[in-house]
Amino acid sequence: MPEFEPRERFFKFIRGLQDDICKNLEAFESQARFIEDRWKREEGGGGWTRVMSDGSVFEKAGVNVSEVYGPIPEALKGQVAPDATSFYATGISLVIHPVSPFVPTCHANYRYFEIRNEQNMILDQWFGGGSDLTPYYLFEEDARHFHREQKKACDRTYPEFYPRFKKWCDEYFYNHHRNEARGIGGTFFDHLKSTPEVSWEQLENFMYDIGRSFLLSYLPIVKLRKEIAFNNDNKVWQEIRRGRYVEFNLIHDRGTLFGLKSNGRIESILMSLPPVVRWEYDHHPEPGSEEARLVERLENPIDWLD
Amino acid sequence: MPEFEPRERFFKFIRGLQDDICKNLEAFESQARFIEDRWKREEGGGGWTRVMSDGSVFEKAGVNVSEVYGPIPEALKGQVAPDATSFYATGISLVIHPVSPFVPTCHANYRYFEIRNEQNMILDQWFGGGSDLTPYYLFEEDARHFHREQKKACDRTYPEFYPRFKKWCDEYFYNHHRNEARGIGGTFFDHLKSTPEVSWEQLENFMYDIGRSFLLSYLPIVKLRKEIAFNNDNKVWQEIRRGRYVEFNLIHDRGTLFGLKSNGRIESILMSLPPVVRWEYDHHPEPGSEEARLVERLENPIDWLD
Repeated sequence: MPEFEPRERFFKFIRGLQDDICKNLEAFESQARFIEDRWKREEGGGGWTRVMSDGSVFEKAGVNVSEVYGPIPEALKGQVAPDATSFYATGISLVIHPVSPFVPTCHANYRYFEIRNEQNMILDQWFGGGSDLTPYYLFEEDARHFHREQKKACDRTYPEFYPRFKKWCDEYFYNHHRNEARGIGGTFFDHLKSTPEVSWEQLENFMYDIGRSFLLSYLPIVKLRKEIAFNNDNKVWQEIRRGRYVEFNLIHDRGTLFGLKSNGRIESILMSLPPVVRWEYDHHPEPGSEEARLVERLENPIDWLD
Repeated sequence: MPEFEPRERFFKFIRGLQDDICKNLEAFESQARFIEDRWKREEGGGGWTRVMSDGSVFEKAGVNVSEVYGPIPEALKGQVAPDATSFYATGISLVIHPVSPFVPTCHANYRYFEIRNEQNMILDQWFGGGSDLTPYYLFEEDARHFHREQKKACDRTYPEFYPRFKKWCDEYFYNHHRNEARGIGGTFFDHLKSTPEVSWEQLENFMYDIGRSFLLSYLPIVKLRKEIAFNNDNKVWQEIRRGRYVEFNLIHDRGTLFGLKSNGRIESILMSLPPVVRWEYDHHPEPGSEEARLVERLENPIDWLD
């Protein structure tokens, strides 16, 4: 029996990753700092929600770690084995909403889940996660950089991961009611378990690689774009597009809806929502504009690394 | 057989009501005017969406009439009789988002629905609707006025209507994930059919009364509050509370979700969303403030006419 269980190793990793990410984001700011809310879940566990607001680069950044456990919640029954009696879930979840419309919004989430029976035997265990980029203006080299870093982190473990998870991401982060992608994609995966090709140990290493890849994927883009001058029209466009982000998270995102229905901590779940959002009736960007070029790409997702 | 069918009479009424409401709202504005989008539904019918934006009193006002029909949509199967083959639905739906945080947001919706079998016999027909008020600052006399007018319109037909529909409204327009009401309520009803106590003719008259009551319920409040000076803090509070409105409409509102899932016209459905919205992490009004007094009331709905 190993010294630590998988859940202990993964939990330790994401707590360290949370520190690392927060430090790296704060380094962009002269004034703004993360504040941490420690919260407890009545049925077992809790979380560490960190939010930085009103920075000069980041308008709202949330980096949340939670570790929850206890009896199987009502909302999960029917989805797990009938003899499952308890669950454990831990994850890091982050959403970065920059001030500048030329810096994309970025989301990442990495989680571990296990269920046990009355004898405390593990019945099932898996990883889930991914990271995706939501630009307001399309810089193709940024999209390629983001995907290249995601692919690198996947390839270190298993070359089949990137193409599968890239496609999964395009399918998941999709606003069906708008017939457009939320952003230019990235990676998404769920119920990732060991297989004959990929051992559990390899999976754990993959989670470390893909978790660490967030900073490599996103920060260079922030650095490159944060000084570009923008005007009020650019900001209005960003706020309108943020409306699509809200629509996805509240209408389609299974994670958000599960949290809301299973008595999760509302403010930690809705931390993902953008700070200022705008809905204008039947808004369409001018044909041929940079704004229209973005929408055209979201309506027609492509492979960025071909 | 009557000269006109119920659906023709009700459709004619709501088209007239749409004109009437738009004219009355435009009378507050020197510049802003409604624009109308006529749209068609591929499977049958369409609508007349009217939106006024950036007024001096109304930041965004939408008054939509739709009349849709055709084969039973996928999203309805299982909810109607198995021998139902076609449906007809017509309704007026309006949401008013004022500029001033001291003027409440108001929503109203009145609709008629029928389903028929292959022989074109009506299998079922009913009315639905209601109107509710969402203040950002609580003026108790406004809440009482709104409820008094709603009650008057109900009482003309049947004294049991107001208490039933008031309670139904409190239960329906409720943000379960926040444990608070969306606003101070009003009326809500669905599947309203003729009974031994209330004939179909009486129901039709009730729909005219309750439909016309919108202007009587809401406009006096607009007149009374629109000149109150407000500051940036009041506006930020309004934008934060508008976030709750978005959450209700996208997470809980059956009408919105049905529209999104049944391939409705997205811009007409999401016309209800406020123009500018704000999410601040874990925002709580100062204890004892006017903002806190509103939230306290939303967490503890009361009868306004006792």
